[in-house]
Amino acid sequence: MARTPPHPDTFDLQQVLEALVDPVRRSIVTQLDASGQDIKCGAFDIPVSKSTATHHFNVLREAGLIRQHYVGTSRMNTLRRAELDDAFPGLIDALITRPAGR
Amino acid sequence: MARTPPHPDTFDLQQVLEALVDPVRRSIVTQLDASGQDIKCGAFDIPVSKSTATHHFNVLREAGLIRQHYVGTSRMNTLRRAELDDAFPGLIDALITRPAGR
Repeated sequence: MARTPPHPDTFDLQQVLEALVDPVRRSIVTQLDASGQDIKCGAFDIPVSKSTATHHFNVLREAGLIRQHYVGTSRMNTLRRAELDDAFPGLIDALITRPAGR
Repeated sequence: MARTPPHPDTFDLQQVLEALVDPVRRSIVTQLDASGQDIKCGAFDIPVSKSTATHHFNVLREAGLIRQHYVGTSRMNTLRRAELDDAFPGLIDALITRPAGR
């Protein structure tokens, strides 16, 4: 689909860490993992503007942490949990077992 | 001891991640863990100048990742592995199971 943004097929630890060092981005990952479902961009509880949120989603997608697809006009986000656990065993668990940003 | 620099008693995930997002600092942690021994500042295999290395050691110490003490004129570094594993289960393992920076 033309409207589906590109997603990397491989993961780079440096890029993944640079994505996860930001507390807002860790919060997005934590909320996705906790819900166990896809969440649309506008439905996250994050203290940033819409344009800043879009930047954070792009960084997460480009690092391989999330997949994005459209449902109607909503951009949905999916955590690539199984792939991440395979590439970096224990990393996501280590970062989401506590409230983001603490 | 007056020459022993200060070390934090508690860990902050944000500060720990900011320390570990740098590949040189991850390499220092990886080398300490692999050796299982204290290593003096001058003995690490890292591609930076002495003054830059000192900065990296300070960041690691201030985040609680390493302890430093003097033996004669050598500043020795100790990985705070057990404390880190207690504070952030799985995090160090997730970051040192592969070559630093990959």
